[in-house]
Amino acid sequence: MAKSRPVPTKKAAKKSSAPAKKVAKKFIYYFGKSRCDGRGDMKPLLGGKGANLAQMTFIGLPVPPGFTITTEVCTYYYENGKKFPPELTDELGKAIAFIEKETEKKLGDPAKPLLVSVRSGARDSMPGMMDTILNLGLNDRTVEGMAAATNNGRFAWDSYRRFIQMYGDVVMGVQKRHEHEHEPFDEVMDHLKHEVGVKEDTELTEVHLRELVARYKKLIKERTGKEFPNDPMDQLKGSIGAVFGSWMNDRAIVYRRKYRIPDEWGTAVNIQSMVFGNMGDDCATGVAFTRDPATGENVFYGEYLVNAQGEDVVAGVRTPKKVQEMADDPVIGPAYKELEKVRKTLEKNFGDVQDFEFTIENKKLYMLQTRNGKRTAVAYVKIAHDMVKQKLMTPEHAIRSGDPEAMNQLLQPVFDRTDYEQAKKSGRVLATGLPAGPGAAAGKVVFSASKAEQMAAAGEKVVLARIETSPEDLRGMIAAEGILTCRGGVSSHAALVARQMGKVCVAGAGDISIDYRAGTLSVDGIVMKEGDAISINGTTGEVFKGLIKTADSELKQVLVAKTLAPGDSELFKYYDFIMKLADKYRTLGLRTNADTPEQVENAVAFGAEGIGLCRTEHMFFEGDRIDAMREMILAESLEQRQAALKKLLPYQQGDFEGIFRALAGKPACIRFLDPPLHEFLPHDGKQQAELAKKLGISADKVAARVSELHEFNPMLGFRGCRLGIGYPEISEMQARAVFQAAAAVQKEGIKVKPEIMIPLVGFKRELDLQVEIVHRVAQEVIKATGQKIKYWVGTMIEVPRGALTADEIAQTAEFFSFGTNDLTQMCMGMSRDDSGSFLGRYQEEGILKANPFASIDVTGVGQLMKIAVERGRATRPDLKCGICGEHGGDPSSVMFCHSVGLNYVSCSPFRVPIARLAAAQAALKK
Amino acid sequence: MAKSRPVPTKKAAKKSSAPAKKVAKKFIYYFGKSRCDGRGDMKPLLGGKGANLAQMTFIGLPVPPGFTITTEVCTYYYENGKKFPPELTDELGKAIAFIEKETEKKLGDPAKPLLVSVRSGARDSMPGMMDTILNLGLNDRTVEGMAAATNNGRFAWDSYRRFIQMYGDVVMGVQKRHEHEHEPFDEVMDHLKHEVGVKEDTELTEVHLRELVARYKKLIKERTGKEFPNDPMDQLKGSIGAVFGSWMNDRAIVYRRKYRIPDEWGTAVNIQSMVFGNMGDDCATGVAFTRDPATGENVFYGEYLVNAQGEDVVAGVRTPKKVQEMADDPVIGPAYKELEKVRKTLEKNFGDVQDFEFTIENKKLYMLQTRNGKRTAVAYVKIAHDMVKQKLMTPEHAIRSGDPEAMNQLLQPVFDRTDYEQAKKSGRVLATGLPAGPGAAAGKVVFSASKAEQMAAAGEKVVLARIETSPEDLRGMIAAEGILTCRGGVSSHAALVARQMGKVCVAGAGDISIDYRAGTLSVDGIVMKEGDAISINGTTGEVFKGLIKTADSELKQVLVAKTLAPGDSELFKYYDFIMKLADKYRTLGLRTNADTPEQVENAVAFGAEGIGLCRTEHMFFEGDRIDAMREMILAESLEQRQAALKKLLPYQQGDFEGIFRALAGKPACIRFLDPPLHEFLPHDGKQQAELAKKLGISADKVAARVSELHEFNPMLGFRGCRLGIGYPEISEMQARAVFQAAAAVQKEGIKVKPEIMIPLVGFKRELDLQVEIVHRVAQEVIKATGQKIKYWVGTMIEVPRGALTADEIAQTAEFFSFGTNDLTQMCMGMSRDDSGSFLGRYQEEGILKANPFASIDVTGVGQLMKIAVERGRATRPDLKCGICGEHGGDPSSVMFCHSVGLNYVSCSPFRVPIARLAAAQAALKK
Repeated sequence: MAKSRPVPTKKAAKKSSAPAKKVAKKFIYYFGKSRCDGRGDMKPLLGGKGANLAQMTFIGLPVPPGFTITTEVCTYYYENGKKFPPELTDELGKAIAFIEKETEKKLGDPAKPLLVSVRSGARDSMPGMMDTILNLGLNDRTVEGMAAATNNGRFAWDSYRRFIQMYGDVVMGVQKRHEHEHEPFDEVMDHLKHEVGVKEDTELTEVHLRELVARYKKLIKERTGKEFPNDPMDQLKGSIGAVFGSWMNDRAIVYRRKYRIPDEWGTAVNIQSMVFGNMGDDCATGVAFTRDPATGENVFYGEYLVNAQGEDVVAGVRTPKKVQEMADDPVIGPAYKELEKVRKTLEKNFGDVQDFEFTIENKKLYMLQTRNGKRTAVAYVKIAHDMVKQKLMTPEHAIRSGDPEAMNQLLQPVFDRTDYEQAKKSGRVLATGLPAGPGAAAGKVVFSASKAEQMAAAGEKVVLARIETSPEDLRGMIAAEGILTCRGGVSSHAALVARQMGKVCVAGAGDISIDYRAGTLSVDGIVMKEGDAISINGTTGEVFKGLIKTADSELKQVLVAKTLAPGDSELFKYYDFIMKLADKYRTLGLRTNADTPEQVENAVAFGAEGIGLCRTEHMFFEGDRIDAMREMILAESLEQRQAALKKLLPYQQGDFEGIFRALAGKPACIRFLDPPLHEFLPHDGKQQAELAKKLGISADKVAARVSELHEFNPMLGFRGCRLGIGYPEISEMQARAVFQAAAAVQKEGIKVKPEIMIPLVGFKRELDLQVEIVHRVAQEVIKATGQKIKYWVGTMIEVPRGALTADEIAQTAEFFSFGTNDLTQMCMGMSRDDSGSFLGRYQEEGILKANPFASIDVTGVGQLMKIAVERGRATRPDLKCGICGEHGGDPSSVMFCHSVGLNYVSCSPFRVPIARLAAAQAALKK
Repeated sequence: MAKSRPVPTKKAAKKSSAPAKKVAKKFIYYFGKSRCDGRGDMKPLLGGKGANLAQMTFIGLPVPPGFTITTEVCTYYYENGKKFPPELTDELGKAIAFIEKETEKKLGDPAKPLLVSVRSGARDSMPGMMDTILNLGLNDRTVEGMAAATNNGRFAWDSYRRFIQMYGDVVMGVQKRHEHEHEPFDEVMDHLKHEVGVKEDTELTEVHLRELVARYKKLIKERTGKEFPNDPMDQLKGSIGAVFGSWMNDRAIVYRRKYRIPDEWGTAVNIQSMVFGNMGDDCATGVAFTRDPATGENVFYGEYLVNAQGEDVVAGVRTPKKVQEMADDPVIGPAYKELEKVRKTLEKNFGDVQDFEFTIENKKLYMLQTRNGKRTAVAYVKIAHDMVKQKLMTPEHAIRSGDPEAMNQLLQPVFDRTDYEQAKKSGRVLATGLPAGPGAAAGKVVFSASKAEQMAAAGEKVVLARIETSPEDLRGMIAAEGILTCRGGVSSHAALVARQMGKVCVAGAGDISIDYRAGTLSVDGIVMKEGDAISINGTTGEVFKGLIKTADSELKQVLVAKTLAPGDSELFKYYDFIMKLADKYRTLGLRTNADTPEQVENAVAFGAEGIGLCRTEHMFFEGDRIDAMREMILAESLEQRQAALKKLLPYQQGDFEGIFRALAGKPACIRFLDPPLHEFLPHDGKQQAELAKKLGISADKVAARVSELHEFNPMLGFRGCRLGIGYPEISEMQARAVFQAAAAVQKEGIKVKPEIMIPLVGFKRELDLQVEIVHRVAQEVIKATGQKIKYWVGTMIEVPRGALTADEIAQTAEFFSFGTNDLTQMCMGMSRDDSGSFLGRYQEEGILKANPFASIDVTGVGQLMKIAVERGRATRPDLKCGICGEHGGDPSSVMFCHSVGLNYVSCSPFRVPIARLAAAQAALKK
């Protein structure tokens, strides 16, 4: 969500960046009272954090002064063997001087030491993925100056040791060398604590901390052979390099892959003067949302810690207070009033819910960051509805800011009411934490991300339980049904990621303790081992022992089960508002891939305007049909085959009648038989023997036919229109079923719009041969029934040759539908079923940016689609073009379909809302 | 052969046809003494027969006057629902008047009846494929006139009854209705003969023939409800329609498909005044070649019959005399002298061996037809050599008139003629499959590769019979004399390997079934056991019971076996002359697909200028290597895999050394490992158990790995560069083997030109990752050996995506080689191994004009090749482009490769002469 922002206008964006490119490149943008170069719409150049810091500065909010090194420097850095542009050193000096002037402090000056933070800032926020350095500027001399200035030696030396630790870890690479090792800096501290006989970090005195600093430096020297740098400018350059370097760390790469952020975007680096929330009880630090990001309620939603640094809130070490409690704080109470004003200013100025960080230093409020708040899908629809109605958000932004994929969350199950009540009554509630990601999840509990991944890959449902999560747990979190943590608030890493991914999450369930080594979770004497069943309610925060059944979501109850009236659901109101808004903007048609009347009904409820793909082969598996189908395949003569087909005809006709009725006049694109015939035959001896008995032939004959139909590469074998060309009587039966059904339903006064789609066409003549049959049968049925039936014939474009000869094929085809599954397989030479063995590696190696079977490969497969549309329409200008591959429900593929001028996309019923929103976003893109 | 003729010039052709198109279309061209519109180079318009009749008329040879209706009328006829252009009737009248004036006879005039023949005449000769009508103009009145004029009533009535029979059959469609019925006209005649008590047709008197005519007419009326037309103009129009109609008869369509003649060409119709070779003993008719078409000897070669019609010679009812015998004929002897002159005139004027028909009517010689004579490959090389030396043929025509494909005939072992005829006569043909590897093989039948090896090692000649072959059978295939399979087409594994090795192969003999367990081959109740004698003819596809003697071809004795000195072979002299002539013209380079030094030597002897494809995987099957290969595949860690690869390295290096030496400085394009790994593992339990024992692991582990590697569509699975990306250590070993071999051979003073080819590339980044390894290893080896090695890296373009993104890929690739086998499979969505089940039907239905795995599908696959060449060279103008798919040895594909600007074609060693000639033809085409 919240990927772009509507204000200021694009023109402004162009104005501000274009000239910079033409003349010498400007690498650094300032933000401060005396000068503010950036604006909120310069995210590609300044990153999200940098652009918004500039914007906040620009509108007068209290932002500590600083500057942003552009993403172009990051690109330069990677394109030039990890070197900075030569001019940067000079610019950096000037920029530091700018901060020094604004703050009246000086980098490296013991008298008035300037300390800065160095933070990454990508175009899209990537929380926790990249490295950060705080307290930069401290060294053996400035630490004494800071101690004097703050009159707090312990604070100064604690800040110093934190800085050394961070710098040593991130910049100098002093990290644990084996998985089982302790963090080296932690180990040094633990030793010291043991020596001096204290338990908590906070018990360490200034003297202890001085000793700790010495030991940290020694550790760095031992491990790296290098001294910790005393020169602040050296510290600064090292830190900038480390932030750029972290753009390419594993975590960041995994994250970008998941969210399809291109590696080329790069990150900006923000250098900002430090403010301290941990200088005493008149200091605090906090994180807040302008509205509730889980439910969308219009309430101020946030938390803070007195006398703490920002990471203390996020890391969940101490449990923070709700932001509202600040009002009653005798020391920092006044700052709360200011915060409430900031909340309003932000929403008004940024046109969306903001997620911001603040620090109070000696009672004075500072804004450290703001960004559009990530939210659940429930919150998205409510916030969009409310803020549009309040005229705080433009309708365009309401559409643009949605994550189409997240619409799925609205359809995710909740707990079955009875089972849930039962579980509560029978005392199975283990604990209650914070409701950090709404929904219901149940499965086997696991305690490590790797285990979660591993078990999920084996098809198990798992709940990942961690003391607290860190970015390293990301893959495990993705794999799990739900996430449970013992520590951390609603702004903790777990909660944040869960919200973004629509994961069920209970955070900070403090009563629970987890022992990683023992592999247990215990609470109140109850001990659960890895693999034990657990259920969590992310809407209430409850944690249950055992499995609880799940039930339909509210939206599903309204639209699918129809057990709830639309008027009784608030959620439906918000959802419907967004969907109708989307319909206003989208120009792409919406269809569904459905084979049964039930599927059609669901899809229509979700907004489908017809069937884009009715797979007729699915109809041959039900009940007795499969016997007739097998009889047909085993037939040894045309007569036998026709006899078997005659049995199939009424079944198929009945199916089509049901579908036509359910569609009530909407078009139905019906694909003729596609899969290889052996898919219909039994492959084990016993079943073959049974079938032989049923058909009164020898088992050997069945086995022989199965082996005859065996293929080395069935995907490229005797299937698709090849079946209908080999056995025209099959196509004839199918055509007859379609037209007789159409005639019957039309007679009932219901409109029918059959579109007959011939699969796997690579040659015009293939289509011609099949279309000849269709026309002939149509005329026969029209004559026999007296019903005039309007119908269309077309083809799937799924073979590269079909795309390349689209001009010829369009002479016959009245429509094209892209079968992007097969088109992808053939264009890339990758079998979807077999690519599992290398796709992972391919994504890691950066060969593929996304799974090509989930998201269209625009560069390769996309070219074939473009070629086909262009050539097809050159022959037949009104050629209707759609897509019916799995990609039809993938947002980025929908964007591409819009851009190449398709008429519609078709996807599975439950993905229709996703496609609906994505189509609207596509229309708004240009 | 003999597809075009060099004289007259092309300019003339353009001149004569272009204006006709601009103004009103000219439908009819005259040939006669008073006017001759056509010329020999107007074949597209007048057909081969018509153009040559005109040319013969033009140069003064005695041709009965007539006219030609152009092929454009045929096209019009089919484009307008089988109707003639309206102007035709009028033009036809004028044309008949022209013949009447020239012959001083009149159509339908009983006094001086003009009789004409109506014959088809396509651009390329299609002997016997289309219909012919003779004696047109006879009716109840003219027959009497003819009787009077010739003073031979029996002759007149016999001509009449022949005409009615032909017309009734061809134009009015009186034909047998069931297969088991007699020809209806024959039946009527047989009845009459029985009634009047005669045995031979010739015994029928004029009176009998008059009765026969009456009965024929009755038959026509009964069968068609229509009267036999008396009006000669009606007869004429009916006959013209029938000839056009015969263009689309089954025979003609099948023929055109075989010789790749487009349906759109159409046929011309020739109407010519009749002359009679059957009016008495001063009449004769004959067929002759200006040289011997079987051996190429410069001797007059023909035969004739006295008192006969042309079809009597062809039909072989009476045994004709050698044309030389005519010299001694007291009556028509003088005509022989004239014929000898004609022979010289024809060769001089047409620049090639002519195959002509003549008739002597009352001692006067008439020329009825001439065309370039079809000939064997042996005759082709001798004739071309001789006639060029005699300055009778231009060198260009010598090249153009060859059939490249037929060059294969010069290389294949042959059956001993007598023994072969004997086997056919005695009914020893068991079945007929696809002629997949030309030549003759005989030996003991075996059903496993290991048995084949074992028996061959013991000095036995064996024929390996398999249901189908796989790479595991390779050694057995090498050991066998010939290969027989029950499944698979001309591009199946068996056929592919057979061609590359010049092995005799009959593939896909579907009537044969093989039972591996019983160790039998059975067909039609005949059961053969292992060790029984079998013979296969890879030129015809026949499979014989028992042994048929074989012999090595002369050319093979010179070039391969070297048992015959070049100077001792006349055939070699002619062959070498043509090949060197071809080299003068061709601009395409010639390479070979070879994996061993022996193959390289053969290919170089045939004219290869380097290796276009060295498949490294074949090297892993020999001896102990397969064990190390299997160990590598079964390795569970990088270390284990590297240990196994270390064992493979020296083998592979040794192979490359041998190849570099054999090439002696010619380039070697080496493809890295391509096939899916499971191809290297044993699939049956027993072998798996053996392997497990050898490697000291459990059989279950082997089985598990085999099943893990199983793929649904292996063609689109984990193979090609995906292997090297998944296991970079494999590519590293291969690169090391190449460079260490190169360094070693270079040290010996032999030049090396390694080109490393990465297979199955669809993404630039795939190539980048592999090329990185190659460069790194190259530097290591160069450093270690001190040998500077120049090498190239490139890729196969075989995935459609690779072709579509060729611009990106060419940034890294220094060369492209089209893997048209896979490119065809993917572009068309057709698995080569599985397409057998529908390719036949596809060719019958006119979807495919040729087998796309034999001849490049220019429309589809060709587009991808063009795109790749254009985009690749846009990035890298000097990009070297070649082809290494099987198509590289297919003449029409070679033409296409030339036209898209490839630098070279590569094919199996024994197809090099084919490609060599085809490349020269391609260069001469424009």
